Amino acid sequence: MARDPGRDSVLLELRPIGVVRTGFTEAAGTPIQPVYASRSEGEVVVDEAFAPALDDIEGFERVWLLYWMDRVGGFEPRVVPYRDTREHGLFATRSPCRPNPVGLSAVRLLSREGRVLRVADVDILDGTPLLDIKPYVPEFDAHPSSRAGWFEDRTEDRRVADGRFHGDATRRTGRRS
Amino acid sequence: MARDPGRDSVLLELRPIGVVRTGFTEAAGTPIQPVYASRSEGEVVVDEAFAPALDDIEGFERVWLLYWMDRVGGFEPRVVPYRDTREHGLFATRSPCRPNPVGLSAVRLLSREGRVLRVADVDILDGTPLLDIKPYVPEFDAHPSSRAGWFEDRTEDRRVADGRFHGDATRRTGRRS
Repeated sequence: MARDPGRDSVLLELRPIGVVRTGFTEAAGTPIQPVYASRSEGEVVVDEAFAPALDDIEGFERVWLLYWMDRVGGFEPRVVPYRDTREHGLFATRSPCRPNPVGLSAVRLLSREGRVLRVADVDILDGTPLLDIKPYVPEFDAHPSSRAGWFEDRTEDRRVADGRFHGDATRRTGRRS
Repeated sequence: MARDPGRDSVLLELRPIGVVRTGFTEAAGTPIQPVYASRSEGEVVVDEAFAPALDDIEGFERVWLLYWMDRVGGFEPRVVPYRDTREHGLFATRSPCRPNPVGLSAVRLLSREGRVLRVADVDILDGTPLLDIKPYVPEFDAHPSSRAGWFEDRTEDRRVADGRFHGDATRRTGRRS
């Protein structure tokens, strides 16, 4: 168990299980959510060791991808998100500059061949390290009438990213100074 | 960027941002998903440094919790999940013994006081390290008619966990040997 001597808290370690391949090489212009990316296809390539763990995934129309947002800036407690012109607490937004930069997207599964998933509705930068794949199960995940705070009276209808959360060109590895 | 000398892959580091407090001290008997936990309340306590990042979260009926499942056994490529009697690839299940043991739950937000969220529909063990909080936004997250593979003709209606994925008492820190 790795401990940070500067702060009495545990460090937890992740290891990528594969990579996400898309046509998006920079944040600006990339869709900010899968629902705005319906024409964007891509591939999810898992490492050989994990290929057997994909069995039976073909039956699911959507899968959750958890991934490491390696090209975002550091944590900021309050941000002006893409979908508004006002500042909100970071945890009340889906902005990427989170304390732990783990992204979450429900992408559409088109097909599987071996260790490669062909997916659509992808809002992820090319080369992003993949952390996990979970099946989308409406019984667990779909709450269509859940009240959505400031999203319900937002003032901005932006659907693609600009550069605001990606100013720091250094790839994030999870170490925070 | 930490590299594992034994395998040429990047290690990514997470740091807990707080802790989840519930009445569940062991896996057996804990609901396996928030939808089966409607009477289970708990608290999400974020570290003082992250309190300002909770501003405006009160407007959301549900939030996603991402957390570190620190009491599950190691990765297995194929498992018999709680909701079936047959084996499936791990990535086609929501079973906790994942390569990166990051849990995902859409819990109901009851109230916020300072750095504490009171939540319901909690399926998480007491003391679980918290990694992230994201607002639940139906426009992004709700796909009520998404086809759900083997879940749609499953043979088992189990709603609480047994011990099958928690046999290894060692707390997982993300290092895999």
